[in-house]
Amino acid sequence: MRAVVFDDRLRFSQNVPIPGIPIDWARIRVQFAGICGTDVEILKGYQHFKGVLGHEFVGFVDQCGSPEWIGRRVAGEINVSCGSCEWCKRGLRSHCAHRQVLGIHGLNGCMADYCILPISNLVRVPSSLSKEQAVLIEPLSAACRILDQIQLAEHERVIVLGDGPLGILCAWVLSTVVSHVTLVGHHPHKTDTARWRNIKVVHGVSESLYGADVVVEATGSGNGLPQAMALCRPRGTIVLKSTVSTAETMNLSPLVVSEQTLVGSRCGNFEAALNLLNCHPDMPLRRLITAVYPIEHAKEAFDLASGSDALKVALSLD
Amino acid sequence: MRAVVFDDRLRFSQNVPIPGIPIDWARIRVQFAGICGTDVEILKGYQHFKGVLGHEFVGFVDQCGSPEWIGRRVAGEINVSCGSCEWCKRGLRSHCAHRQVLGIHGLNGCMADYCILPISNLVRVPSSLSKEQAVLIEPLSAACRILDQIQLAEHERVIVLGDGPLGILCAWVLSTVVSHVTLVGHHPHKTDTARWRNIKVVHGVSESLYGADVVVEATGSGNGLPQAMALCRPRGTIVLKSTVSTAETMNLSPLVVSEQTLVGSRCGNFEAALNLLNCHPDMPLRRLITAVYPIEHAKEAFDLASGSDALKVALSLD
Repeated sequence: MRAVVFDDRLRFSQNVPIPGIPIDWARIRVQFAGICGTDVEILKGYQHFKGVLGHEFVGFVDQCGSPEWIGRRVAGEINVSCGSCEWCKRGLRSHCAHRQVLGIHGLNGCMADYCILPISNLVRVPSSLSKEQAVLIEPLSAACRILDQIQLAEHERVIVLGDGPLGILCAWVLSTVVSHVTLVGHHPHKTDTARWRNIKVVHGVSESLYGADVVVEATGSGNGLPQAMALCRPRGTIVLKSTVSTAETMNLSPLVVSEQTLVGSRCGNFEAALNLLNCHPDMPLRRLITAVYPIEHAKEAFDLASGSDALKVALSLD
Repeated sequence: MRAVVFDDRLRFSQNVPIPGIPIDWARIRVQFAGICGTDVEILKGYQHFKGVLGHEFVGFVDQCGSPEWIGRRVAGEINVSCGSCEWCKRGLRSHCAHRQVLGIHGLNGCMADYCILPISNLVRVPSSLSKEQAVLIEPLSAACRILDQIQLAEHERVIVLGDGPLGILCAWVLSTVVSHVTLVGHHPHKTDTARWRNIKVVHGVSESLYGADVVVEATGSGNGLPQAMALCRPRGTIVLKSTVSTAETMNLSPLVVSEQTLVGSRCGNFEAALNLLNCHPDMPLRRLITAVYPIEHAKEAFDLASGSDALKVALSLD
């Protein structure tokens, strides 16, 4: 099958074997796959992953022990848990000690004609969602995760740092629960894309932004945190979204002195993302897709996704 | 008056003017002052403070507009707030935007014959407490602060990193509410000092410690956090106590991936510390005092406090 492979270099292959499926797993014929900042970090060494890349997709179940799933249009949660370790038993399946993560850790990803996942990871994608919308369910669920983790009062001032797709999705999700959301970016065409509801967009930081109740760090860079600490009020909350391959030099004493709380935030629940889309069908997800490339042109797609101009770059497998 | 001054170098002076007091402030005749890790960091440039050092003390009110305070034996909370900024109005007086901090920021400290503080910062110290115990009320209140910030269930596993006075005080405080407290240190004579109630002490980290519900980072070093992240369970809590002058190179991606929460924790309420001592009069505070020097020998005292052998080093002004 066709696939985008990283094995110390990024390459398109036509000769990757089609995966078989264990019991209770499904094989999915991938229709559309997104390139995420994490994929770009993997090319720099993040997670030391080698194999088929990709964890954002929409497709159709092609092979599966449960016949009711065959032909269903699905997306899939990316963490595959063992079900028997201490964390699985305590209900923290996405933190399974032995987990595989689609296209990130121990499991080939979805930038291929076929990928495989446990049936329990699949969610049905309604036909009302386009493939461009559906491929964003995974990052949208990661944005929704913030709502599970922190209590937000409607009057609180929220700042999102980062005008990439995840930053914009975080701003959109948060704007559904609080009135004062400001997105800080550096690229006018991206911040324009972010405008929705009453989100305020600004280029760079000014003094008027200081003292925010909540700051979401979604710059995709290891050096966004010092700025987040400076913007957040004493005893405020910083949500850290960026996962990066490189270490940064920083001093966390301001976080101690201001008694801020830093919350690490990763993947979310796909049903929560679908419910949010159901309540807010006008969320302009389509705007986030900068370009679509056929999978054969994955290298050009990654080049575009690695630069600062693009939002979401997708691969088509039709 | 006699005082320990830092102005790019540490020195003992006999010629510092005795401070006058604004309205609603008190002047305290200092009896006993402690050297804290923060004082040692100030010598390295932390907070760019210059002036009389010291923020841990017990003494007697000497001059004050409210006669009922004269002669009282007191300790004092170290943050002096303006009362009118946004944070003061919101009840966050210890985070006042214009605050002075005794011996740390904008206000001469207590390693002197006299120091001054607002009357509202003073707490009466009962005669049942020795001066060695009383000088530890400030760091004890900082340890108690953790109990205000996080919810602890009795069965949770807590690890404290750091066998300095603050680490040991954190372990002692936490052992009053949870059964499983482990203190990780590197100095046998310090970890021996930490033994109280059912606290387990270990030298260095072993695999059996992994997966703790709560990790308190009190190493006094900027590089304790990576170890705290490794020891803490997914979705667990890390309390960060160390404030340091230098930046460290680190990657916080593990905190994101494990969705840990990092809580910056600073000063606490003195009444809470006194209440805890009232409930636990057997808390062996006295053990923490390694040495007492007359203030004239402050440089030797700081030399001892800066090394890894000492716990609390105190200065006597009798």
